[in-house]
Amino acid sequence: MVDILHRIGVTNSSPDKVYDALTTIDGLAGWWTRDTTGSVEQGGVIAFRFVPGGFDMRVVELTPGERVAWLVVDGPPEWIGTTVTWELKQEGDYTIVLFSHTGWREPNEFMHHCSTKWAIFLMSLKSLLETGTGSPAPDDVMISDWH
Amino acid sequence: MVDILHRIGVTNSSPDKVYDALTTIDGLAGWWTRDTTGSVEQGGVIAFRFVPGGFDMRVVELTPGERVAWLVVDGPPEWIGTTVTWELKQEGDYTIVLFSHTGWREPNEFMHHCSTKWAIFLMSLKSLLETGTGSPAPDDVMISDWH
Repeated sequence: MVDILHRIGVTNSSPDKVYDALTTIDGLAGWWTRDTTGSVEQGGVIAFRFVPGGFDMRVVELTPGERVAWLVVDGPPEWIGTTVTWELKQEGDYTIVLFSHTGWREPNEFMHHCSTKWAIFLMSLKSLLETGTGSPAPDDVMISDWH
Repeated sequence: MVDILHRIGVTNSSPDKVYDALTTIDGLAGWWTRDTTGSVEQGGVIAFRFVPGGFDMRVVELTPGERVAWLVVDGPPEWIGTTVTWELKQEGDYTIVLFSHTGWREPNEFMHHCSTKWAIFLMSLKSLLETGTGSPAPDDVMISDWH
């Protein structure tokens, strides 16, 4: 099993504000994809859609201001059954976001792509919180032929 | 052992041009850090310096247009003994860069940071090749309190 890991720091924010951006439809649509629908409650399923396809995530953990976890219940075969976890904390002027996407069965080329693309979307989250404007799909930063 | 993996696609380029950006002082200084010195030949050591510190990489593999590998011989303790590998190939209009930084002993918070930061520098490499201008340190994109 191999994991995708990332860390960013957000200024002029707070763990509660980052938590809102991860747990509300408006927040998620502001940095990941504008086509975000579904239920953001514990046990609910959020549907994220992109030009190439999409992901359905079951919300499996919601600890306000601290931690959010999603289980991928539909999407590309490589994603199904994997887990996306967000850990939040304040360190000085920065709200630190520790991201992990764990449970990948093999480190294939698609996983390489998703790792880089997650970094780009984390920077979109950072931008949304710091400036009020993110770069969610379909206006996301292209990194390759795979979008 | 845990790995950092990334994938980008570069347009209007070629595996040979990407290879040059990975194997010449001018190329490396154009996307990673302007403070790049040393020997880029097989067995040579390249010194990359940043505001917070730096890395010394021994060039352990040079296959023109295909593959480059570095062994970290000095730098942060977490980096020493790890390997950075670049694989290049052409797919249609895109030169694909498969990046891996392998041999991390544990998935600590610093590794999370380095994973995101590598993605940012890969986008700098892409920009250098596509537009002629990268964002090497000290003009790199800040991602957190850790630079």
